[in-house]
Amino acid sequence: MTALNSRFEYVKGFERDDRCLPNSWIIVRVDGKSFSKFAEQHGFEKPNDKLGLELMTRAAVSVMEELRDICLAYGHSDEFSFVFRKDTSSYNRRSAKIMSNVNSLFAAAYVFYWEDIFGPTKLKYPPGFESVIVVYPSETNLKDYLSWRQAELQTKNLYNTLLWTLIKKGNKTETEAHEILRNSTQKSEILFREFGVNYYNEPDMFRKGTTLIRKLIPSKKDNKLRQYIIPLHCDLMGEEFWKENPEIVGLKSLQVCHRTIHTNIFVVNRPNNVCDKNDNDSNMRMETSH
Amino acid sequence: MTALNSRFEYVKGFERDDRCLPNSWIIVRVDGKSFSKFAEQHGFEKPNDKLGLELMTRAAVSVMEELRDICLAYGHSDEFSFVFRKDTSSYNRRSAKIMSNVNSLFAAAYVFYWEDIFGPTKLKYPPGFESVIVVYPSETNLKDYLSWRQAELQTKNLYNTLLWTLIKKGNKTETEAHEILRNSTQKSEILFREFGVNYYNEPDMFRKGTTLIRKLIPSKKDNKLRQYIIPLHCDLMGEEFWKENPEIVGLKSLQVCHRTIHTNIFVVNRPNNVCDKNDNDSNMRMETSH
Amino acid sequence: MTALNSRFEYVKGFERDDRCLPNSWIIVRVDGKSFSKFAEQHGFEKPNDKLGLELMTRAAVSVMEELRDICLAYGHSDEFSFVFRKDTSSYNRRSAKIMSNVNSLFAAAYVFYWEDIFGPTKLKYPPGFESVIVVYPSETNLKDYLSWRQAELQTKNLYNTLLWTLIKKGNKTETEAHEILRNSTQKSEILFREFGVNYYNEPDMFRKGTTLIRKLIPSKKDNKLRQYIIPLHCDLMGEEFWKENPEIVGLKSLQVCHRTIHTNIFVVNRPNNVCDKNDNDSNMRMETSH
Amino acid sequence: MTALNSRFEYVKGFERDDRCLPNSWIIVRVDGKSFSKFAEQHGFEKPNDKLGLELMTRAAVSVMEELRDICLAYGHSDEFSFVFRKDTSSYNRRSAKIMSNVNSLFAAAYVFYWEDIFGPTKLKYPPGFESVIVVYPSETNLKDYLSWRQAELQTKNLYNTLLWTLIKKGNKTETEAHEILRNSTQKSEILFREFGVNYYNEPDMFRKGTTLIRKLIPSKKDNKLRQYIIPLHCDLMGEEFWKENPEIVGLKSLQVCHRTIHTNIFVVNRPNNVCDKNDNDSNMRMETSH
Repeated sequence: MTALNSRFEYVKGFERDDRCLPNSWIIVRVDGKSFSKFAEQHGFEKPNDKLGLELMTRAAVSVMEELRDICLAYGHSDEFSFVFRKDTSSYNRRSAKIMSNVNSLFAAAYVFYWEDIFGPTKLKYPPGFESVIVVYPSETNLKDYLSWRQAELQTKNLYNTLLWTLIKKGNKTETEAHEILRNSTQKSEILFREFGVNYYNEPDMFRKGTTLIRKLIPSKKDNKLRQYIIPLHCDLMGEEFWKENPEIVGLKSLQVCHRTIHTNIFVVNRPNNVCDKNDNDSNMRMETSH
Repeated sequence: MTALNSRFEYVKGFERDDRCLPNSWIIVRVDGKSFSKFAEQHGFEKPNDKLGLELMTRAAVSVMEELRDICLAYGHSDEFSFVFRKDTSSYNRRSAKIMSNVNSLFAAAYVFYWEDIFGPTKLKYPPGFESVIVVYPSETNLKDYLSWRQAELQTKNLYNTLLWTLIKKGNKTETEAHEILRNSTQKSEILFREFGVNYYNEPDMFRKGTTLIRKLIPSKKDNKLRQYIIPLHCDLMGEEFWKENPEIVGLKSLQVCHRTIHTNIFVVNRPNNVCDKNDNDSNMRMETSH
Repeated sequence: MTALNSRFEYVKGFERDDRCLPNSWIIVRVDGKSFSKFAEQHGFEKPNDKLGLELMTRAAVSVMEELRDICLAYGHSDEFSFVFRKDTSSYNRRSAKIMSNVNSLFAAAYVFYWEDIFGPTKLKYPPGFESVIVVYPSETNLKDYLSWRQAELQTKNLYNTLLWTLIKKGNKTETEAHEILRNSTQKSEILFREFGVNYYNEPDMFRKGTTLIRKLIPSKKDNKLRQYIIPLHCDLMGEEFWKENPEIVGLKSLQVCHRTIHTNIFVVNRPNNVCDKNDNDSNMRMETSH
Repeated sequence: MTALNSRFEYVKGFERDDRCLPNSWIIVRVDGKSFSKFAEQHGFEKPNDKLGLELMTRAAVSVMEELRDICLAYGHSDEFSFVFRKDTSSYNRRSAKIMSNVNSLFAAAYVFYWEDIFGPTKLKYPPGFESVIVVYPSETNLKDYLSWRQAELQTKNLYNTLLWTLIKKGNKTETEAHEILRNSTQKSEILFREFGVNYYNEPDMFRKGTTLIRKLIPSKKDNKLRQYIIPLHCDLMGEEFWKENPEIVGLKSLQVCHRTIHTNIFVVNRPNNVCDKNDNDSNMRMETSH
C-alpha cells in the first residue's frame, strides 16, 4: 500500500459489522419496485401475467444456481423470498453481502432472460428491486414466514381475480368493482354464481405461487443423479409439504424427486462450484416433463 | 386482512429497523462479483477496457436518474460509489431499502445497456454485484472516502499499466511481470525509460476514474436550463474539485456548469419525479459536446 | 484452553460488534427507574429535593472521575447525560461496554454516597437506572441535544413549581392543581400574582439543572494547576456557554477556570490514570468557594 | 410540549431501535471492572473469597427479584449471567433497556448489601460492572453458553487453587508458581501428591459456581407454595440439570422444589408485581436450611 492510500484508509473503519445471528434461517425477500406501473407499461395481463411470472421464476432460479446455500425460494406476483440454510457461512453471514448478491443477481437475470420469455416484446427500461433481509431462529418461524407470504397471495389473488372478472366480464369500471369487493365476504361464491368461474380451477401457479427446491433427478441421458431446481405450485401451509421434503429444514443431503413435475420448466444446476461462472451454457437447459 | 394472514403476520416483527444515522452522508458502493473472470470471458481489454468502463458509467447514470438524492457518484474498474445527500430522507434512510434500490438498478441497467455499448458482442450470463453501505458524519470523512477510492485506483492502475506493458511489449509472462513489479518502486520511470510510455499521457478516465455530478446546462433547443448528469475525469484529492462544485457538500441548489465537458456522453435527466418511470425515451439522449 | 472450553467457545461468536460510528459524539443518558415511587418512599421534597439532586451530581462526578473521555455531563431531576469526546477510543467505542460502565458506576456511586449526603435517612432498597446510548454526528446536534434536555427541564419545572405551590400554599388537591394547570398558559404570572413567587428567583440548580465540566484550577496549597470537575447551573441554549468553554467541542486541552464557582461542591479529580482505583481518599475533597 | 422543546426534539430521532430478535434467549453477562485490583484493596481471600461470592449472589438475587422474566442466573468469580425467557417482552426486548436495568440493579445491590455481608470491613469506593448482551436462537446454544462459562470456571479455578497452594503451602513466589503451572498438565494430581489436597473435596460453590433458579417451596408458616429463588452449586454441563428442571427451557410454570437445598441462603421473592418497590423488607429474609 502507498502512503497515500494509508492516509485515507481509516474511512474503511466506518463500515459496520452486519453479520446475521448464527444458527438461524436467513431470508432475503426481493420485491419489484413500482411494478404496477411496470406491468402496465409492458402490457402485462390482469390479474396474472403468465409470462411475467415465468420470468420472475427464471430470475429466482438464476439466484439459486449461483448461491448454493439457498435451500428454498418462494414467490408470487412481483416478489420472491430466498431461504438460506440456517448453518450457512456464505459471505461470513454478512447481511449486506448476502442481500446484495441475491438482489443484483435477480435484477440482472430478470433483464437477461426477458427476451427468452417475452420474445419480440421489448423491455422498456431496467426495473429496480427492493430487498429486505430477516433472520428467523426456529423452524416454526420459518414455516410461518412462508405461510404468511402464501396467505397474502391467496387473499390478494382471490380479490384480484374477482376484481378483473367484474371489470372484464361484468362490465364494471375499476371503481365500481372495488366498491363491490369492499362489501363482499363471499368472493369465490360471487365468482361462481355470477360468472360461472370456479376459483379452485384457476391455475395452481396463480393461486399458490411458485416454490423452488433442489432435488436429485436421474438424467435422461445417462441415468446419473443430478441436482435440479424444481418449481412446485403447492401448499406451504400445513405439514404435508414439509413431510414430503424433510431435507429442507433437516439440513440433510438432497433427496431424489418422487413427485411428477407438472410444469414446463426445470433447470439443470451447474455442476461447478458456487462462485465460478461457466460460459458453457449447454448444461443450462429447459426441459419438459410428462 | 383475513384471519389466516393475521395468524402468521407476527413474523413481520422479526424485521429490524436499519435506519442510517440522520445528518450523515450515506454511501453505497457497488462492486462487480468475480469480475476478473467476467472480464476474461467477455474479452475485455487489459488493463482497461474502454467500453466496459462506459457501461459501468451508463449503469451509474441510470441509478442517479432514478434516485435524486444521490449528489455524486464515483467509479473505476468494476466498482461505483454513490453518495446520498446528508439530509436525504429517501426510503426513510433505511439501509436495506437504499442499498437494494441502488444495487438492483445498477445490475439491471448494466445488462439493459450492454447491447447499446457492446453491440454484437453478446453478454454470456447475468453478472452479480456486491454492495456495502457506510455512513460518514463529516465532510472531511466524505472527501477522504472519495480520496481513498481514487488513491486505490491510482496505485492499481499504474501497477496494471506497467504489468500489461511488460507482457504485451516486453514479452514477459504474467509471472515474470509480477516479479519485476514486486521489486520496483519507480513504476512510471520504467514505463517511460523502457517503453517510451508517459504514464501521465494515459487517458484521464483510466488514471482518475469517473465522477458523476449534477449540473444545469442551457438546452441547445430552447436555452432553458435543464438538469444533466455529467461525467468528469478529475482529481478528487485536494480542494480544487470541491471549490469548483461547492453545491455538493453545501446541500445547495444545482449550479450551472461552467466547465467544457471533454467527454462524449452526458445525459439529460428525466424531468419527472423520482419514482415515475417514463416510457418516452426521447428525452434520454446522448449528446456530444465540443 | 482446554478441550472442554473449546467445544463450547463457539457461542462467543453470537456476540455482535456494536461499535459506535467514529468521529461522532457519544451520549449516554442514565434515568432513574420508577423514581417517582423512590422519591415518595424516601420522603423527597416536592417539586425539587436539594439533597436528592446533590446525590445525583455526586454520582455523575464519580462517573467522570473514572471515564476521562467524558467532556461534559448534564442532569436534572432523575436523569444525567454523559457526553464522550467525538474522538474517544474508550472501550474501542463499543456501545455495550461504554453504556454499562457509565450505568453501573452511576448506580454504585448513588448507593455509595447516599449516607454522605442523606446522613441518618436510610436508603431502603437499591435503585435501578435505565440507560440509552445515542450518537450525534455534528456539534449542532450535540448542542441541540443538551438544549432539548434543558428545555424539557424548564417546562417540567415551571409546571411542577406552580403545581406544588397550588397544593402547599393554595390548599388545592393534586387533581385540582393539575386541572388549573391544564388551562393556564401563563404559569409564571400566576405564581407571581397569586403567591408572590418570582419564578426567576428560584435556585438556578432547580431551573437550569447541573452541568459538569472539567477545568484547571490553581490549588490553594501549592498554586499548581490541577484538574477539577466543576458544577455549573447555567444556560446551555444559546451560544454563551459554548463561547466561554470552547475546549469542549473544540477537543482542545483543558482550560483554566475563570468563573467564580457559586456552588458548594467541586471535586478534585484523582491524579492517577483512568482505570486505577485509589484507596487514598484524601485527595477526594469537597471544597467551598467564595 | 412547548415551542422550545419541539425545536430541539428532532434529536430524539437519532436513537436506534435495538430490539433483540424475537423467540430467542437473551443473556446479559455482568463482569466486575478491574476486580483483581478491587479484590486486593478489600483483602479478598485467594483463590476464592467466600463472602465476596455471597455478595455477588446476593446482588444477582436482587436482579432476579426485580426482573421476573429472568429464568436462570449463573455466576462465579466476578461475573454473573442472566438468562431471560425466550418469549420475554420485557422492555419490548430493547437491548439497552434490558442490559442497563440488569447492570444498574446489580451494581446498586452490590454496594447496598456490602455491609450485610462484610460487616465492619468498609467498601472503599463504588465498583463498576461491564455488561454484554447476547441472543441465542436455540436451547442447545443456551445450554452450551452456560457450559462454556462453567468450563471456564473449572479451568481457572483448578489453576488458581494450585497457584495459591504453591504460594501459601509450597512457599513459592507468584512468579515461580506460574512457571510451575505453565508446564503442568496434571494439576489435580500435584495438588493431591504434593499437598494432600483432594481438589474434588473443594467446596462446590468454588468448583461449580452458583446457579439461581426459581422454585415453589411450601412456606414453613402456612405451608402455602411461594416462589423462591434458590442457589445451586451443580453441573450445568450434561443433561441431568435440565432433566431435573425442565420448566426452565420448557417455558412452563414454576415447579415445586424437590431437592434439599444445601446452602445457607435462599430468598423469598417479593409477591408484588415486577416494578413495584416494596419498603416492607419483612418478606425478604434469609433462611438456613438444616
